[in-house]
Amino acid sequence: MRGFFPGRFQPFHQGHLRFVEQILEEASEVVVAVGSAGLSHTQENPFTAGERISMIHRTLEHLEDTTFVIPITNIEPYALWAAHVRTLSPSFDAVYSNNPTVRRVITENGYDARGVDLYERDRYRGTEIRRRMNAGEPWRDLVPDEVADVVEEIDGVERVRAVSRDDG
Amino acid sequence: MRGFFPGRFQPFHQGHLRFVEQILEEASEVVVAVGSAGLSHTQENPFTAGERISMIHRTLEHLEDTTFVIPITNIEPYALWAAHVRTLSPSFDAVYSNNPTVRRVITENGYDARGVDLYERDRYRGTEIRRRMNAGEPWRDLVPDEVADVVEEIDGVERVRAVSRDDG
Amino acid sequence: MRGFFPGRFQPFHQGHLRFVEQILEEASEVVVAVGSAGLSHTQENPFTAGERISMIHRTLEHLEDTTFVIPITNIEPYALWAAHVRTLSPSFDAVYSNNPTVRRVITENGYDARGVDLYERDRYRGTEIRRRMNAGEPWRDLVPDEVADVVEEIDGVERVRAVSRDDG
Amino acid sequence: MRGFFPGRFQPFHQGHLRFVEQILEEASEVVVAVGSAGLSHTQENPFTAGERISMIHRTLEHLEDTTFVIPITNIEPYALWAAHVRTLSPSFDAVYSNNPTVRRVITENGYDARGVDLYERDRYRGTEIRRRMNAGEPWRDLVPDEVADVVEEIDGVERVRAVSRDDG
Amino acid sequence: MRGFFPGRFQPFHQGHLRFVEQILEEASEVVVAVGSAGLSHTQENPFTAGERISMIHRTLEHLEDTTFVIPITNIEPYALWAAHVRTLSPSFDAVYSNNPTVRRVITENGYDARGVDLYERDRYRGTEIRRRMNAGEPWRDLVPDEVADVVEEIDGVERVRAVSRDDG
Amino acid sequence: MRGFFPGRFQPFHQGHLRFVEQILEEASEVVVAVGSAGLSHTQENPFTAGERISMIHRTLEHLEDTTFVIPITNIEPYALWAAHVRTLSPSFDAVYSNNPTVRRVITENGYDARGVDLYERDRYRGTEIRRRMNAGEPWRDLVPDEVADVVEEIDGVERVRAVSRDDG
Repeated sequence: MRGFFPGRFQPFHQGHLRFVEQILEEASEVVVAVGSAGLSHTQENPFTAGERISMIHRTLEHLEDTTFVIPITNIEPYALWAAHVRTLSPSFDAVYSNNPTVRRVITENGYDARGVDLYERDRYRGTEIRRRMNAGEPWRDLVPDEVADVVEEIDGVERVRAVSRDDG
Repeated sequence: MRGFFPGRFQPFHQGHLRFVEQILEEASEVVVAVGSAGLSHTQENPFTAGERISMIHRTLEHLEDTTFVIPITNIEPYALWAAHVRTLSPSFDAVYSNNPTVRRVITENGYDARGVDLYERDRYRGTEIRRRMNAGEPWRDLVPDEVADVVEEIDGVERVRAVSRDDG
Repeated sequence: MRGFFPGRFQPFHQGHLRFVEQILEEASEVVVAVGSAGLSHTQENPFTAGERISMIHRTLEHLEDTTFVIPITNIEPYALWAAHVRTLSPSFDAVYSNNPTVRRVITENGYDARGVDLYERDRYRGTEIRRRMNAGEPWRDLVPDEVADVVEEIDGVERVRAVSRDDG
Repeated sequence: MRGFFPGRFQPFHQGHLRFVEQILEEASEVVVAVGSAGLSHTQENPFTAGERISMIHRTLEHLEDTTFVIPITNIEPYALWAAHVRTLSPSFDAVYSNNPTVRRVITENGYDARGVDLYERDRYRGTEIRRRMNAGEPWRDLVPDEVADVVEEIDGVERVRAVSRDDG
Repeated sequence: MRGFFPGRFQPFHQGHLRFVEQILEEASEVVVAVGSAGLSHTQENPFTAGERISMIHRTLEHLEDTTFVIPITNIEPYALWAAHVRTLSPSFDAVYSNNPTVRRVITENGYDARGVDLYERDRYRGTEIRRRMNAGEPWRDLVPDEVADVVEEIDGVERVRAVSRDDG
Repeated sequence: MRGFFPGRFQPFHQGHLRFVEQILEEASEVVVAVGSAGLSHTQENPFTAGERISMIHRTLEHLEDTTFVIPITNIEPYALWAAHVRTLSPSFDAVYSNNPTVRRVITENGYDARGVDLYERDRYRGTEIRRRMNAGEPWRDLVPDEVADVVEEIDGVERVRAVSRDDG
């Protein structure tokens, strides 16, 4: 059984890693789908698709027999999302997501939507990590070491700060 | 004389129906244009273009000699909107709308923009109907019976609730 | 039972009309879907979506209880076409088309694809009608009278000739 | 040395003119790039690209030996912006901008980003000028005379008011 | 009176220059519109919009009091072209073009379309110039010296050859 | 050192596999980039991005420590292609391609473009394999076994035949 796990991963954090591990308790393989792949350098989406794929590939290196990583661009209308991901991904049996719109669209199209228990949801959030980066507070313990390395290499904290100062 | 009546119709409600009836007092035919046709499954635009066309076709069945229903996608820049709708619609003589931007764009392009007296504007609003659906309050009396039927068939209230819980 | 009949209708001709009539022998309603709606003023697609919708509405006026007319833009990848038309159209039970790609995409998505016997296929073709318009040969007998009227009103033959002289 | 100066110029105002003059103190030529060129008739972007180009051409007529004016559409992801403007503009040596995201993207792509001292930043702002237009307060002294002329010719204040009344 | 002169200018050649000069015999100003601005590095469109703008700016330097140069992207449907160029360009009174589709679209939208006598049409053609570049034959005498300079600076002949060898 | 290997892979064949193996003789890792990811169900591009990713993942399973597979959509203008792939891919040091336009674009943007000796180029070509599928001739020996399996599972030969019968 193969699962499909969509997210924006801005950045990929410990909660996402636990999520993957939970999926792999019931699925033999999982496609990690990097959403909003066509966005970068904004407050909500500072990192490019390529940078996020790097973060995930490195973090999941020990799981590379059982994980795929693919980018997914946004699509309008949202009603097409299920068909869209089906054309972009290796085939899958269930979508793992706690996002209510994703779950709804998937269910309306006859696919299986499953949730997982989120691990310390308030602590492990992209919004919180980006806030800390911007404020100069500690953030490294919220992400896998491999992700911290990628952020370092691309001077990512400076980028988060730059786009946060942008008032349009 | 043929009128053109654009709206998002999320969903089509009693106020819209009165609007069509008012237009038909001075026009012999009216094109009902389903705007933002490329959007669905969002808080502002929960229903697909096809679902909204169904709502309108059924409601206006008794007027089918004098009404057309067509979808209209959004276009950027807004300056192109008048030309855009002209390529998508059977020809028309006047645009009926109370939206100030629509009226401005239409007028700047040399077309005739007309308003109508809105019928209980505060009561018959898409925003209010979606709020009621989400809150579990009564909403059926705000829409024609045919619209309530379509919402039922597509399990529309559940969809409105799902997309309303989405915090992005 | 409702059928879905996609075509480019450049222009809508006698063969298309027979096609609609054949569908209505087994379906109670039919959605006539004007494809490539985002194209006009080219050799293959001289008429706008709005003009084609006018041609069809007028021709099918006697069938307006049982027919819908909607425009459909192209979508890439073609794999999304089935989901795309489902979001744009009132719901339908079967797609009527002799186009092999349309039939394939529809079937791969679990829908019912049906063909019809084409009526004098070599004679009733958009390509042939546009060739005649361009060459100054008789073409009116290949289309319903209502279509000839629309072509006249928009000075359509001159447009076909103009875009045919364009070598890019 | 040629500079590149991007902005939305909604409308082009005295602060922008000073900015151009400052750039020309160190650069021999400057490309004035009209950003968000694909937007118009919104609260943030009331004027079309063509109207903004007219404003700038007229204002800079005395500098036409040393200035270029080109429109730039938005692009996603923002990571492509540096490459995007390079394909649309005559070649340049440095980008002049105080926008932190623009500066970041330019720097990440190996180009030279330079700032200038903003002239009475709080006073000379597009937001403030549009607010005044909408409120019926004096705005002409904030823009060059040539810009006021263009706004007059296109009945621009009325447009700003119309789109400001639009609640979506 | 201001004229509008659209073309792809791949590259800008002596025939185009004569065309501009002819327009300026009856118009006081001319907008030179660089079409297909969103294309480059193909056999038909080897040069970017920015490179073509450079070619034209340099060639028309002696006419800079009376000429504007702006890029124009393609738009679908072609029916929108007249409205599209109106949003992107300073206002104009007549379109100068010998292209039959351009003339048709312009006329259908109520604008004035004018032609000019082409100067040695068979000799001064983009197709012929690109063919010569690719074949290693002399081409410099077909373009203004300033254009030859730009082609040199960007190593343009090598680019034309590279994209010509591409069989898809 | 990481290489980047773009192709359309319609389908992935023995020549592509040799190409990857040759790259890995000088690079420690290779990104296999599935181009024209937004196309499917056409004669030139019958397979979806997801199907092609499946073909490649299965074939390269023994190399999964050293290979990445990512989809790449087309972009216009081609001048943006180098920046586009940089935002979508983990970082790389050289592009391996024998396509002259790809090599040109890469070189113009300051990256390293490298070719490889093609293995029996006339035999191992997507065009030839699709022709054989359509004609009912043997094709399995031209692709890895894993690719033949995927084609089987998706009933791919029938799809190639369907889209080949489409005359537009």
